[in-house]
Amino acid sequence: MSYLSEANSAETVNGRIGEATDPRLRRVMTSLVDHLHEFIKDVELTEAEWEAAIGFLTRTGQICSDTRQEFILLSDALGVSMLVDAINHRTPEGATESTVFGPFHVEGAPKLPMGTCISADGKGEICLYQGRVLDLDGRPIENALVDVWSDNADGFYDVQQPDLQPKWNNRGVFRTGPDGTYAFRGIKPVSYPIPDDGPVGQMLAALGRHPWRPAHMHFRITAPGHERLITHIFVGGDSYLGSDAVFGVKAALIADFEAVQSPTEAWRTAFDFVLRPI
Amino acid sequence: MSYLSEANSAETVNGRIGEATDPRLRRVMTSLVDHLHEFIKDVELTEAEWEAAIGFLTRTGQICSDTRQEFILLSDALGVSMLVDAINHRTPEGATESTVFGPFHVEGAPKLPMGTCISADGKGEICLYQGRVLDLDGRPIENALVDVWSDNADGFYDVQQPDLQPKWNNRGVFRTGPDGTYAFRGIKPVSYPIPDDGPVGQMLAALGRHPWRPAHMHFRITAPGHERLITHIFVGGDSYLGSDAVFGVKAALIADFEAVQSPTEAWRTAFDFVLRPI
Repeated sequence: MSYLSEANSAETVNGRIGEATDPRLRRVMTSLVDHLHEFIKDVELTEAEWEAAIGFLTRTGQICSDTRQEFILLSDALGVSMLVDAINHRTPEGATESTVFGPFHVEGAPKLPMGTCISADGKGEICLYQGRVLDLDGRPIENALVDVWSDNADGFYDVQQPDLQPKWNNRGVFRTGPDGTYAFRGIKPVSYPIPDDGPVGQMLAALGRHPWRPAHMHFRITAPGHERLITHIFVGGDSYLGSDAVFGVKAALIADFEAVQSPTEAWRTAFDFVLRPI
Repeated sequence: MSYLSEANSAETVNGRIGEATDPRLRRVMTSLVDHLHEFIKDVELTEAEWEAAIGFLTRTGQICSDTRQEFILLSDALGVSMLVDAINHRTPEGATESTVFGPFHVEGAPKLPMGTCISADGKGEICLYQGRVLDLDGRPIENALVDVWSDNADGFYDVQQPDLQPKWNNRGVFRTGPDGTYAFRGIKPVSYPIPDDGPVGQMLAALGRHPWRPAHMHFRITAPGHERLITHIFVGGDSYLGSDAVFGVKAALIADFEAVQSPTEAWRTAFDFVLRPI
């Protein structure tokens, strides 16, 4: 029998796992303990640093509420959310890439006719979003639900300002017809900072990182027989494209926004989405 | 400029650290991100597992209070606390080894004359603890403060039962004289489970691990010119010595407890502590 020492620490902890333990849980926890102990040995973590870490994690948990998830924000800011996304959505050639879901989606947004404007607060410049939902062979997908959401022109989602913004401001769901096309109007989104008044904001500041995300429109597209796609389209030219605080940008998700002279919109952007089969 | 991908994820996150960042913070965070991303890639963490982890960490933070520190418990149960202790207290030959501080120490316990009994609730079997505080050359250390604390015979510290136990039950501070000796009476401690009604208890159950700690008396010994020693002495023969839930046991910290016929105690144990110089 061996007691825990610097040399055998991870092995000792993992040696305690019971025989009847779920094999996947054993695999995940064993690797977690191995890597966690390796990290501590690598940096020779001091007791003061350990105490700071305990305090940081505690504050991160305590600031969480029904409307705030600081651990997701931490995961986002450390690139963990995008890494998990990348591992779980290795995209075949031709399919549209995914990115972070984010904390601001709300289920049950209004189902609207094609072309409807989802901006209800009269702020910002209106943009026509249009394109097709296609399969890997380029065929249109009928009955795809295109669920879209964005911030308003002040950089806040409706759920962040329930008393200031109309309900369902900048949210809507559209259903494709036989030709697979979608079209709706919304604002040309603006870049905004992730909530930075908590532990994650303090971490970013200590690391010399800014909290800004480049402007983007969120899409969640579901269609029978196809894998759900969660992604954004980013506004081309945004100054934060190269330094998204949550690492969500992919080159193929950056769209051109074209200024137009039209009574119904100031901008237009076209983007086709390609779903992969289940 | 490169966006985050499965291949470059840790490098991309660490590449964002600002130039003016404190070098030690940079070193710690870079290693943390490297190891965290390696762990996620190693197990190919699923989105459901990521969500479970976010929920676990959130609950762990939310159950923390003035009287409960679940993240310290998590650190203890994963062997992290003992690893940090081992790294920060590499003990020279001859010095007494340290172990976990634990969450139950209270500053300001009564300073008592040598020989006083610290048990005030009339429960349990009394034991005489005696020995010397020495330097590495075997010379007695005068004016060492020997701060001791233990659970009561029901397995609870006074702070866990503020309405049931007398204040300062099983706590006291003793000051050594010129001969370096200490002596006090307390109970022969009993093994007890760490609080297992929260996330850490659920984790232990899922891993097939029990929450018990072998019986022990806590010591914190401070003396001018010497490094502070935080340790336990464990009750020899305890059935949990080989499976302490927090991995605190070291062979050299296990003491013999001898049954005696005496009007003042039922047990005696002798243990010398050797401090290293600052």
